[in-house]
Amino acid sequence: MNIAIVGLGLIGGSLAKDLRAFQMLDELIGVELNPSHQKLALELGLVDCILELKEACERADVIFLSAPISSVKKLLPIVLEFSSMKLVIDLCSTKKTLVHLVENHPNRACYLAAHPMSGTEFSGPQAAISGLFQGKNLIVCDTEKTDKEKLELGISIFQNLGMKIQYMTADEHDLLAAQVSHLSHVTSFSLAMAVIKLSSGDFNGIKKMAAGGFHSTVRLAKSDPELWNQIFTENKENVLDAIDAYLTEMRRFRDILEKDDTTEMLDFMKKSNQINRLYES
Amino acid sequence: MNIAIVGLGLIGGSLAKDLRAFQMLDELIGVELNPSHQKLALELGLVDCILELKEACERADVIFLSAPISSVKKLLPIVLEFSSMKLVIDLCSTKKTLVHLVENHPNRACYLAAHPMSGTEFSGPQAAISGLFQGKNLIVCDTEKTDKEKLELGISIFQNLGMKIQYMTADEHDLLAAQVSHLSHVTSFSLAMAVIKLSSGDFNGIKKMAAGGFHSTVRLAKSDPELWNQIFTENKENVLDAIDAYLTEMRRFRDILEKDDTTEMLDFMKKSNQINRLYES
Repeated sequence: MNIAIVGLGLIGGSLAKDLRAFQMLDELIGVELNPSHQKLALELGLVDCILELKEACERADVIFLSAPISSVKKLLPIVLEFSSMKLVIDLCSTKKTLVHLVENHPNRACYLAAHPMSGTEFSGPQAAISGLFQGKNLIVCDTEKTDKEKLELGISIFQNLGMKIQYMTADEHDLLAAQVSHLSHVTSFSLAMAVIKLSSGDFNGIKKMAAGGFHSTVRLAKSDPELWNQIFTENKENVLDAIDAYLTEMRRFRDILEKDDTTEMLDFMKKSNQINRLYES
Repeated sequence: MNIAIVGLGLIGGSLAKDLRAFQMLDELIGVELNPSHQKLALELGLVDCILELKEACERADVIFLSAPISSVKKLLPIVLEFSSMKLVIDLCSTKKTLVHLVENHPNRACYLAAHPMSGTEFSGPQAAISGLFQGKNLIVCDTEKTDKEKLELGISIFQNLGMKIQYMTADEHDLLAAQVSHLSHVTSFSLAMAVIKLSSGDFNGIKKMAAGGFHSTVRLAKSDPELWNQIFTENKENVLDAIDAYLTEMRRFRDILEKDDTTEMLDFMKKSNQINRLYES
């Protein structure tokens, strides 16, 4: 089987590393516009060759799209045409626009909308790591619109990567992604910005004080601005709603603290503690 | 040397574990009011015996206070009296009130105000772990008010635990603690609360979606409400200022997103990325 990966960053590169171990793999084809990423992907042995999009689509049996959402919006309809009835899977962090975009595409049944819930705060081919997907959730959306055999092939590839498959609609996905993944990025970016401003650019005090708790809370603020600009914009309405719900809670906490209502404050934190239920089996 | 630890929770218990390895240690004495914690601390072998406060102070050469701040406020003046000129070190997360409290105490020079920048989201003697302090910062405050020899003894104990000693005033400490440690707890508690409310108590969707980024951002929301109630209340004015600075930034981000100003949004995240400077050597 020949597999093409369009976009060789953290996700595409890590996917390439794990697909290498597949017994059924013949050739791993990369498509990448950034010349330095092309060079790095070949040097790191992530892919066997870099081809033009059209040629890659013709030669591959399965095509993964792991570029940022703005590129995938342009690529998806073209790839569905070029690939002439082969399985096309996108790995973007938002799903609604893509699903709507190809709703009436003649090759719609060849498309599987997927989102691997795995990543790091780093980016580019040099950030690619083995085992990134192992044990993680893969969300697939609106799967009733995908051809049954193609869906099974896609699922089997992700299961081979060690992923747990979760089904939902693209609408549900984007709403939940805003509330869980995108909101936690906004809180981290805002925390970093507040602390940087409060320090007036002098990090000596923060360096003395910052320990494990701060590091883990602020980690996502190191994420790629270009990528997150696209994700936030793409999922704007859901993200705004999530931010508003969060601001309401934080303002409530602030007011409780201001009026010294320790009973309410205790109650707030005990309810927050219920997030522990996520970690129960 | 006999060492007494008053309060055998996460911090006191972890301290006991590491002090065990000290060559110069003769006896490790625990003081603990909670009967189940007493039992657990003896079962786990954290301390050699549990004594009443007065007896422990008389028998020990060095006394650590690792109880919550509300207890330490009551204990510190008494312990300074009971211990008759031995070194007394508190390990609370806020320092200003304690330092002011014993400002004119006849045994003020025996007191060292310290804050180890290490911990986990867990609590109680069962949460005690070895090596918790290794490589971490220890902040000591207003050290010019501590007797020179006692200060040296205290510092040498912490250095033996592998800690890096950082000096600042109690005022500076409480301000920075609010901006870095306490604020990141507020953002985590608020994130958990917002996500719990948005889910209407049904965690199935969050479970499918929550990955490494969310887990690390929300981790501190599992922290002990009783303890944090005291810390927030103790450092109220600084925490309110830090929350306000944070709310300003998050509202700014929200407005930028709402008006589709992708240039401003990119700029916001690029500035937030500067938090990376914390991780440069």
